[in-house]
Formats: sequence, structure tokens, C-alpha cells
Amino acid sequence: MERRVAIVGLGLIGGSIGLALRHLGADAPEIVGYARREETVAKALSCGAIDRAESSLAKSVQNAGLVIVATPILATRDIFAEIGPQLMPGCVVTDTGSTKASIIDWAAQLLPDGVEFVGGHPMAGKETSGIDVAEPGLFRGCTYCIVPGRNSSPASVELITDLAREIGARPLLLSAAQHDRLVAGISHLPFTAACALVMTTMGSQAWSEMSGLAATGYRDTSRLVSQDPTMTRDICVTNRENIVLWIDRFIRELERIRDLVADGGEQLGETLSLARRMRQEWLQQYEKRSQTKIDH
Amino acid sequence: MERRVAIVGLGLIGGSIGLALRHLGADAPEIVGYARREETVAKALSCGAIDRAESSLAKSVQNAGLVIVATPILATRDIFAEIGPQLMPGCVVTDTGSTKASIIDWAAQLLPDGVEFVGGHPMAGKETSGIDVAEPGLFRGCTYCIVPGRNSSPASVELITDLAREIGARPLLLSAAQHDRLVAGISHLPFTAACALVMTTMGSQAWSEMSGLAATGYRDTSRLVSQDPTMTRDICVTNRENIVLWIDRFIRELERIRDLVADGGEQLGETLSLARRMRQEWLQQYEKRSQTKIDH
Repeated sequence: MERRVAIVGLGLIGGSIGLALRHLGADAPEIVGYARREETVAKALSCGAIDRAESSLAKSVQNAGLVIVATPILATRDIFAEIGPQLMPGCVVTDTGSTKASIIDWAAQLLPDGVEFVGGHPMAGKETSGIDVAEPGLFRGCTYCIVPGRNSSPASVELITDLAREIGARPLLLSAAQHDRLVAGISHLPFTAACALVMTTMGSQAWSEMSGLAATGYRDTSRLVSQDPTMTRDICVTNRENIVLWIDRFIRELERIRDLVADGGEQLGETLSLARRMRQEWLQQYEKRSQTKIDH
Repeated sequence: MERRVAIVGLGLIGGSIGLALRHLGADAPEIVGYARREETVAKALSCGAIDRAESSLAKSVQNAGLVIVATPILATRDIFAEIGPQLMPGCVVTDTGSTKASIIDWAAQLLPDGVEFVGGHPMAGKETSGIDVAEPGLFRGCTYCIVPGRNSSPASVELITDLAREIGARPLLLSAAQHDRLVAGISHLPFTAACALVMTTMGSQAWSEMSGLAATGYRDTSRLVSQDPTMTRDICVTNRENIVLWIDRFIRELERIRDLVADGGEQLGETLSLARRMRQEWLQQYEKRSQTKIDH
């Protein structure tokens, strides 16, 4: 791990990375933090997510061997432009955004020669956001996508892979195109589907009667809608082709299931049983995998 | 509460009703249980969900003042036919199924004169099913739909309303048509949407690559798919018109959101923020409501 690490953006993800790194004890780097809002910085200092703060973005990254940008995706572009001239040669920059193709373009355009970019995406999150809900164990057992940039050397890829391991996650190397296509299905489709579910039900005239019947099933199915709306908007804007493709596939499957329901025949029961069996199999693997890492 | 209550079907719901009633202590009725599988009966006896078991369905309901049928919906029809001749005059029959119009028809056709039917539907459940996961607190703070049958007297409606209150739930009186329309939106649409999500993602060629990236968001959004497939099949079969209507509305909303994503303009961000705000408002009310009852 580098001697000095800068974290730009001290929300749930940035704050939790800081907390996880500081839990390394004697092996922990010095962590310099930057956030736009003073209140956030004060909280990050008091909960121990960072060692010290800088009041300007430019100063926060000076002399850092590793810069972790953990802001909504579209803000990353401006941050790259602003920090570029401040970075020391040999510095490695990474991010934590949920899409990768755009960020890799911006890094290539805006970061100076001698600075390498390696994208990162921890598959962890919460319904709530902000430094208040940050925790050192957030990444334990989670998959951490590592997406090399245009000029990434094996050493800088290894640095981000080590970072992922040190905070308890399972690094997984992917290309940007592969990453953005896969997360559109596994993460952005569930989110947009949950949004459509909320708009369909809560936007209905029957909602005032219906709302009293909503219970844990509705709560869990709609949970992703409560994520930070700037983050989710930026995800949709920077991964639109893939998301549109997955929504179209989802609509076709819904039409098929609607027809099976209307028909009421045996194929309906078979489809419901198959979906359940597939989910149970995945869930077993998922729980085993997460558990294994928690025990580390 | 009646002196003797029979519970037919000792799964999550039947078992939890038994446990909740027996927690009433001195006020608890005698609870006679029946389940098809011997293993289930043995478990219900050992966990204290029932006082005693009968080996035949017919015997289990004899001399009961209240019969609670807690089986998948389509099985209820055969049970009504079989228990009808055994019921004592003045007996009240209720159920716990997720749809009501069909069950009320069957009760009118199959239960004898002098026996009244009042439908019930506790809005509680778990991803897992069976007596092993039954618990006395399952209904605390939950809404319990009360749906009068064709011949329900105020006294029998009051009996089921009291039952709901005694197990910690909030009774809510609805007509069968109203109930089936509302639960199609709040419960059966989220379920069918979750099924379509699982079929779209797990049925995709990309699944082997994607599955490693699935995390808590995917798990929660797909949770309802793991419900008992006989129960969910029966729900779809007995509420098909309403479910088809809600799936069609959902598809139209998905098409709208897909177009907003493709466009990437301001309206996308506005929709995502609106959905989030509406969900947060509902969630606050839901948590307050559930909490209030848990404190009782």
C-alpha cells in the first residue's frame, strides 16, 4: 500500500474505504480526505475515516501515491480535470463508480502522462448513503471489479487489486465494456425495474387504498429506489445503451409471464418453479462466497 | 375466542397462528391441528403450535367453533368439500389465502347452511416456508385483511377481526373484489416482476459471468421468487385478470423509463428523484405503523 492515500468524496463508499484502511493498524497509509461539505469532513474526521483533511481539492491529492475518487460518476470528470495538474508522477488514480467506459475515457483525456488510472467498482452498497452509514466492514466478502484504464501497468493494476483485498473484498478483473454490460443486467436493471414498480403502484389512483397493504415484500422489492438519485442518474446517463437493452429483454420476459398468467396452464407453474430453483441455487453460492470472506 | 379452534395446514402461516394463539396463555383456545404430512404434525406438536393433532381431516374440525384453513389456495376447495359435512352448526370457517373471490365462491358452494365463512389474509410472510420458520410474532403490526363471505353475519366478521387483533395484527375490512384488485398491485405484481427479473438475468447467456457480481441489491429485489411455488401458482391462477392488468401497466411504465434512459435528459433525473421521494414517504409511514403495533 502507498504511504499516502487521498480519498476524494467521503460518502458511504469513500468513508467506508477510509475506515477499512485505518483498521489495518500499523500497515495503514496516511489518509488525507476531501469533501465539498464541511459537515461531511468533520464527520469523517470524528468517526476516524481519515487522518486529516485538506480544505482544497488540489491540496488534498498532492504527494499522494494513490488517489481514490468516490463521488457520483459525472462529478468525477471535473475532479479529474482539477486534480490532473496537482498529481505527482507515478501516482495511481482509481474510482468507485458503477460504470466504467466513460470514466476511462475521461481519465485518458484529463489525467497527465506519468499518472495511471485503474477503475474500481466495489459491489457493495446500502439503501441509505452518506458518511453517517459508512462502516469498515462494508466490503467484506463483496466482489470488487478492477477495470484497467488505457495506460495501466501491471503494477498499478496490482496496487488496486491489493487495495480491494486489504479492505476485505474479492477482486475481479474485467474490461470496461464487459463490466458495463454485466452490471447493467445485475444491478441497473433491478434498479430501473424497482423504479418502474414504485411509479406504477405509488402513481396509481389505487395507491391510497393499497399503501396500507404494502409489507416486507414490497419494501424489499423496491429497496434500490432509495439509493442516492444523483448516483443513479449518473449511472443511467453513462450506461444507457446497455440498460436500454436489458430493459427491453425484461419487457419481453414480462410479456411472456403475463401470457402464462392469462393462460393459467401448467407452463405457468413450471416457470415459477424454475425461477425459484435458479434463485435458490444462486443464493446458496452467494451466501457461501460472502461467508468465506467474512471469516478471513 | 371460541373454545376449540382447528387449524388445517401447519405451514408458516398456520403454525404461526397456532403459536400466537397459544401465547395468549389462559385465554388461549384448545387448538387442534391437521396437516397431510406426519413430519409436519410432529413438528407442530413439539414446537407448541397446536395442543393436539388428529390423523384425519374430518375429525380435526369436529366440534370446532372456528376452523382456520391455512393451505395453498387451490387445496382449500377440496378441503371445504371434505370438511363441510363434519362442521357443527354455528361454526365459522376462515382462510389465510392471498386471493379471495374464488375462495368465497367455493365456500358458498361447498360449506353447509348454518356454517359461516369469513375470508382472512394476513399481509405477512417470509422468503422461506414451512412449520420450521413459524413464529408467534409473525403477525405483529401487520395488516390482516378481513373479507366477509356471502352469508357472513356481523358476529362472525367480528370473530375473525378479534382473531386478527389477538395475534397482534391490524384488521382491515375489504370486499373480495377490492382485496383481489389491491393485492394484485401491491403483492402479486412485485412477485411476477421479480420472477421476470430472475428469468431475464439467470436465463441469459451472460449469467455465468454476471452471477459473481450479484450482491444484496439483486438478492432483495428477487427475494419474492423464493416463496412456495404452489402458493404463488395458485395466486396467479385465481387472480389472473387483475395480475394481467397490473403487469400491463408495469410494462407501459418500463417503456417510459427506458425512453427516459435512452434520452438521458433532465426528466430522467426528475423521475428517479420522484420515485425515491415517494418510497421514502411510504417507508416512514410503514415503519411507524409497524413499530406502533410491535410496542403493544
